[in-house]
Amino acid sequence: MLENYQDRIRSPQLRSKVTTAAEAATWVHDGMTVGMSGFTRAGDVKIVPLALAERARHEQLKITLMTGASLGHDVDKALTEAGALARRMPFQSDPVLRAAINRGEVMYIDQHLSELVEMLRTRQIAPIDVAIIEAIAITETGAIIPSTSVGNSASFAILADKVIVEINLNQSLELEGLHDVFIPKLRPQREPIPLMTPHDRVGTTAIEIPLEKIVAIVITNEQDSASTILPADAETAAIAGHLVDFFQQEVAQGRLTNSLLPLQAGIGTIANAVMMGFVDSPFEHMTMYSEVLQDSTFDLFDAGKLDFASGSSITLSSKKSKQVFSDFSRYKDRLVLRPQEVSNHPEVIRRLGIIAINTALEADIYGNVNSTHVLGTHMMNGIGGSGDFARNAYLSVFATKSVAKGGKISSIVPMVTHVDHTEHDVDILVTEVGLADLRGLAPRERAQVIINQCVAEPYRSLLNEYVTEANQRGGHTPHILEKAFAWHSRYRDTGSMLPAIKNPDAEIQLTRLLSGQAESPETLGA
Amino acid sequence: MLENYQDRIRSPQLRSKVTTAAEAATWVHDGMTVGMSGFTRAGDVKIVPLALAERARHEQLKITLMTGASLGHDVDKALTEAGALARRMPFQSDPVLRAAINRGEVMYIDQHLSELVEMLRTRQIAPIDVAIIEAIAITETGAIIPSTSVGNSASFAILADKVIVEINLNQSLELEGLHDVFIPKLRPQREPIPLMTPHDRVGTTAIEIPLEKIVAIVITNEQDSASTILPADAETAAIAGHLVDFFQQEVAQGRLTNSLLPLQAGIGTIANAVMMGFVDSPFEHMTMYSEVLQDSTFDLFDAGKLDFASGSSITLSSKKSKQVFSDFSRYKDRLVLRPQEVSNHPEVIRRLGIIAINTALEADIYGNVNSTHVLGTHMMNGIGGSGDFARNAYLSVFATKSVAKGGKISSIVPMVTHVDHTEHDVDILVTEVGLADLRGLAPRERAQVIINQCVAEPYRSLLNEYVTEANQRGGHTPHILEKAFAWHSRYRDTGSMLPAIKNPDAEIQLTRLLSGQAESPETLGA
Repeated sequence: MLENYQDRIRSPQLRSKVTTAAEAATWVHDGMTVGMSGFTRAGDVKIVPLALAERARHEQLKITLMTGASLGHDVDKALTEAGALARRMPFQSDPVLRAAINRGEVMYIDQHLSELVEMLRTRQIAPIDVAIIEAIAITETGAIIPSTSVGNSASFAILADKVIVEINLNQSLELEGLHDVFIPKLRPQREPIPLMTPHDRVGTTAIEIPLEKIVAIVITNEQDSASTILPADAETAAIAGHLVDFFQQEVAQGRLTNSLLPLQAGIGTIANAVMMGFVDSPFEHMTMYSEVLQDSTFDLFDAGKLDFASGSSITLSSKKSKQVFSDFSRYKDRLVLRPQEVSNHPEVIRRLGIIAINTALEADIYGNVNSTHVLGTHMMNGIGGSGDFARNAYLSVFATKSVAKGGKISSIVPMVTHVDHTEHDVDILVTEVGLADLRGLAPRERAQVIINQCVAEPYRSLLNEYVTEANQRGGHTPHILEKAFAWHSRYRDTGSMLPAIKNPDAEIQLTRLLSGQAESPETLGA
Repeated sequence: MLENYQDRIRSPQLRSKVTTAAEAATWVHDGMTVGMSGFTRAGDVKIVPLALAERARHEQLKITLMTGASLGHDVDKALTEAGALARRMPFQSDPVLRAAINRGEVMYIDQHLSELVEMLRTRQIAPIDVAIIEAIAITETGAIIPSTSVGNSASFAILADKVIVEINLNQSLELEGLHDVFIPKLRPQREPIPLMTPHDRVGTTAIEIPLEKIVAIVITNEQDSASTILPADAETAAIAGHLVDFFQQEVAQGRLTNSLLPLQAGIGTIANAVMMGFVDSPFEHMTMYSEVLQDSTFDLFDAGKLDFASGSSITLSSKKSKQVFSDFSRYKDRLVLRPQEVSNHPEVIRRLGIIAINTALEADIYGNVNSTHVLGTHMMNGIGGSGDFARNAYLSVFATKSVAKGGKISSIVPMVTHVDHTEHDVDILVTEVGLADLRGLAPRERAQVIINQCVAEPYRSLLNEYVTEANQRGGHTPHILEKAFAWHSRYRDTGSMLPAIKNPDAEIQLTRLLSGQAESPETLGA
């Protein structure tokens, strides 16, 4: 299995650096800061981290781990279980690590994905000691050719004292040439990022570092972990339908062309389903300027809808991965992978005029969005790139199913328990019920549109009751502070956000609401 | 008084457009959207709006009013009292208008200051019908030379069907050449903003529009309203002192040079006082890339500390205004005024690496900031440019006095009742008590540093109690939802955030806390 690796280490002097994962892991010492490749499970390092975890089971070894975004291969799980993680940034999505974070055992710094390397570069946080980067090959000059993600790998390798490379024979050499590594200069020499379309190439195809920094090379042969997205269902299809209708209206009104503007879609099932909805849309010659390129990107290519996609990683289901990488030349000239600092850069997002589609964990009646914290306290994954995109987009869309847990949780609440995206950064809120166009609306107007467009009974009536009472107290953004989180407290105490029935009248009314017989208020702005 | 105005209308054919304010105001009809000059009380139009208000007292006349930012001359007050405002955006600071907003009578859209003209340009909100712009002069070709602010004036004039110009004889002709009007191209032709230092000039010195669009010219002779900032006091001086100490440490550690990085300071007393603190600092050759240039900017010039200042307006106290404008040539080549879209542009802020210093109305133990909403519901002014800067800055500082209303309000609370700036966008929190450096810290760590560094007794102990109880419930960001706003409810009900005394033990403890005798926890990271 390992016989071919010499072709992938094109600098003869580096071939002597090939070693085992266990040996490579000894470069990492207790207390160090380690930067690893990996973004949305793609292009992560696969065996050195597990060797680190193994060591941590037997000796004192706690590190600060920085990555691009989430990792596959249960790396976060293994490191957490071994007690090897003191700190973790800027994103994760592992259930075991998440639990440790929520117990307060791992200090997790949840960051805008474009910002971590800015803080490293300006030495505002502890520097990277060792970078561990997956590559398809190393060039004659020691430049690292990444695999299915770029993430923060380039800046990690540039800023680290020492670099360990995992060369993954399972990753196709056809990926060479796909990457565009651009690193902004230090201030005050910094210049504009000269990127004016999603397909512009502004950097190099490999990560150029002094060859001497590569202290170990480990050979692997492992597939990326498959994406965990679920197939579209009736609700996600309805959300996609509302968005396609909305964009058709925007085209009809002359605000967008039939190619729309470059699309960004967040990670996960809902965003992927929304993008799948464009397969059967009337739009043509679309482009993407996004973070992760999921199954839907390739379905849109195959449907002839998409002309080009720029991202920071490719994360596919097992089936789609086989199809795409068995015929990669078909797609390669329509793809580019960039550092997440560039894919998510405010400068570029604002310039290109991105349509950003991200997922809300919950939203409130004024359009504030919680992307991260269950019941305001417990971290799910992290803000990821959603803030980079939502703030700077031409149009910022947040999507969610209107309810969760079989209706026991309303995704639209009086007040979100944690704010990741303020009302200022949310233009469109869409659920399977409908779409709320919030552009140019004041908070009291936003509340009416959100409740009427995005919420089904019985929560619609309950929210209207809340708003009516809140409005009597006045204010630009009316609230009843002592009731703002009552739904969340009720869920914690009873397992449902729906009120308990305390008297026969209320019971009758609630029954009518649940069966959809209650009168619903007029729909605004439909 | 009006005899000289002909020199200020350099196009002979425009001289026939000179008319009265009342006559000019007739171009505005009921239901129109009007864009007016004015940013932080500077360069606002001064008499046509009052003529509009006068008309609205006698006829149905309700408009959507857009400006740069806040206006002087009681314009918002007069329009509100006349019932002339249906909608208002993107910023205001008038007590009468504020009250109408909080009663739900005027629909107020509180926006990032860099974003309004993007939405107008892409027709995502109702278009501008009439622009009313203060000028010092009109050129031979009909180009408008702004006065003490640029704000949104250029895009308003470019996008409006009709333009009314107020030529203010009171504004010095020496202002000509001060402005740098750069308008980004429409997408997909948009290019980088070629601005690489605060002193780069990238545009024109006047607002170039087709001469035919100027339908009326009104001559005025009125001073800008003076700024309303208060002098520094012991608390604001202490805040400034903590920041100067902090920046000295950053310089000592090699993260900043002795010129720091370009400074932005928010509007108002605290930010102005912080900037005044740099007068006696060891820093040299500083620059500003900010929105409003206040008294402190000119004090820093006079102290030889500041090399250059870029802003969107100049707003001075009465005394400072006399001094500056009587000797303007002394400052002019070290100043530039830009459209607020450029002064506040994410692209430029990120590129230059701004140190952003803004004011918090309240902050919470995790570093979320409320800049706008009293008790979570009642609008004070608006988010202004704080979000543009805080998100994209090299370093984002928020400053506030630790208490208000003689100690009855703590500015640091368990949970802010409204979030304008999330924890992700707040690097430094500073009060007169001390400075919390939050960079690279997880929420539980942020809470300890904020409580210990920024809060005095008795609130410090009360917050520690809250955190201790919250931590027992677990979570990445521990909270007790049913108690998160208890301080705010108590203030509303009792006039103080401090708890009522219900038993002798508690009374003794509170007395000890208030007199500073209680033990305080160890100070972290000082």
